[in-house]
Amino acid sequence: MADVAAEAHVSVKTVSRVVNREPGVRRDTEQRVRGVIDRIGFMRHDGARILRQGRTQTIALVVEDLANPFYSQIGAAVEREARIRQHQLITASAEGSPTRERVVLEGLINRRVDGLVVVPAGERPATDPTVSASGTPIVYVDRPVRGEPCDTVISDNPGGVRSAVEHLVANGHRRIAFLGDDAEFWTARQRREAFVAIHDALGLPGDTRIAMGPHTVESLAPRLDAWSRERTPITAVITGNNRVTLNALHAMRQVGIEMGLVGYDDFELADLIEPAVTVVHQDPTSIGQKAVLQLFARLLGDESPAQTVVMPTRLIVRESGRLPASLRARKALP
Amino acid sequence: MADVAAEAHVSVKTVSRVVNREPGVRRDTEQRVRGVIDRIGFMRHDGARILRQGRTQTIALVVEDLANPFYSQIGAAVEREARIRQHQLITASAEGSPTRERVVLEGLINRRVDGLVVVPAGERPATDPTVSASGTPIVYVDRPVRGEPCDTVISDNPGGVRSAVEHLVANGHRRIAFLGDDAEFWTARQRREAFVAIHDALGLPGDTRIAMGPHTVESLAPRLDAWSRERTPITAVITGNNRVTLNALHAMRQVGIEMGLVGYDDFELADLIEPAVTVVHQDPTSIGQKAVLQLFARLLGDESPAQTVVMPTRLIVRESGRLPASLRARKALP
Repeated sequence: MADVAAEAHVSVKTVSRVVNREPGVRRDTEQRVRGVIDRIGFMRHDGARILRQGRTQTIALVVEDLANPFYSQIGAAVEREARIRQHQLITASAEGSPTRERVVLEGLINRRVDGLVVVPAGERPATDPTVSASGTPIVYVDRPVRGEPCDTVISDNPGGVRSAVEHLVANGHRRIAFLGDDAEFWTARQRREAFVAIHDALGLPGDTRIAMGPHTVESLAPRLDAWSRERTPITAVITGNNRVTLNALHAMRQVGIEMGLVGYDDFELADLIEPAVTVVHQDPTSIGQKAVLQLFARLLGDESPAQTVVMPTRLIVRESGRLPASLRARKALP
Repeated sequence: MADVAAEAHVSVKTVSRVVNREPGVRRDTEQRVRGVIDRIGFMRHDGARILRQGRTQTIALVVEDLANPFYSQIGAAVEREARIRQHQLITASAEGSPTRERVVLEGLINRRVDGLVVVPAGERPATDPTVSASGTPIVYVDRPVRGEPCDTVISDNPGGVRSAVEHLVANGHRRIAFLGDDAEFWTARQRREAFVAIHDALGLPGDTRIAMGPHTVESLAPRLDAWSRERTPITAVITGNNRVTLNALHAMRQVGIEMGLVGYDDFELADLIEPAVTVVHQDPTSIGQKAVLQLFARLLGDESPAQTVVMPTRLIVRESGRLPASLRARKALP
């Protein structure tokens, strides 16, 4: 740390602040310090502090699909945070299967990983006997588990859905549908429940359309087409995650439907599609970071009660929430 | 294996063929067998075959950026192949820094991973002393290393660039530019060289425009604008990878340029952008799979000379390669 301080012409305290992400460091100073750290390969010695008999300095991340951008961004954040603490990251996929998840978790425990960050597959009790027996700290991400409280980092799903519905209503939509992912997923169910609750709260039509997945382009195209042709048609949909959004966009294109859309999860080209897609942004990088920080707190001896951190979402308003021109005319009819 | 065969009503030999990806199994049979394997959690016992003193049944993947879809798809394929062989996967990022890569590789060797799949950062000699001394098998992916031959899986970059240029020429383009990524990357340089070579071979104008990155939307917007205003303007660009494509698309949108485009690397919404983006598709899943299969061959005792596998690319023709209408008129002028 002294080397970094000398090289960056700052005090050791400043280096420490940067490394520990404490406030009070100017942006340009922080960048200079990070540059030096990167250059000379300095690494924080949390490793040394927590290394003791039996520790492997390895943590593991178990997700559903490593290629899904939401999870790969969580993965990149977890890897980075682990690396600067001199820990290696094992990544594993349970491909959404609770059976496979159990096998994967057992394998990781047998290898004596020091801690786990897990997106639980399906819904299952927190008291996974293998994990509990091992005493390995675990932080659940994206979805909680049932039973006794566990460290968990989730998104503000009700808040996210509320912002989506309110945005659509402000744009003149009244008949809004919800396309959720598989109801087996807690997030899908929670977003659906939030959708129903906000509908009631705003006094919107009670006979709205809700369809839970799995969805494909082929299943969505006729469904959206039918919805758009009802006597009082659906004029907008909210899609429950990035997978559903992609399929819905393809389906809308296929049948040539003009319909408002707010997608859950931002995606890289949302602003280049016509119309640019308005989304509820969850921040996978912050979610991953938060989970690792909590895990390392446990590894460093934090024995406070289990905590659930709810990360805020943010509505990114582009164009797709507007009432399409073709529907504005129709709205004037009785 | 006998259990799987009984459950799927096929012979043990058929199960073996499916697991080893050998030909001669009907598609529906293969799917049934895979379904059973997934359900009963069968795992191939390569693990048992290669397990001996000192093996950890862990392999590692080192890439530049775990959140980049090209690498995350490689990662998902590597994890899957490792998992069905009862090996765990450590993933690490060197963030493009050779210095950090050395630290990461040393860390992995010290942990005695059994094998490594590495996208090398920058260009560096194959004879990494730490890796060589350990005798740990290593397969390089996406980019080769210098010096003595190593197991390597790369894409057919010259073939990919050639297909892009030929497609643009067939659509009436003559003045085509190349936007490569940072010339520090071997792939960026190889694609640039292929671009120049195919220009010569086809007798295209010799004074074409080539710009290597790193690029940002801010740097690309004025550049593309200037190119499109030259006396004999550039009418199309080839972008050297997915990052450059995204930035170029944003830049074109920003300055409102109509220009032909073929992007290197497919991306999920390429077909929903207006005009739909024609791309050179590399197959990251197959690349990852190939690399793992080669690594496991080495772990199983294959001592044949190092091999370089060149994976084919495929041009996915959508709309962006066409000569924009506004340029077709101009072309008629002297």
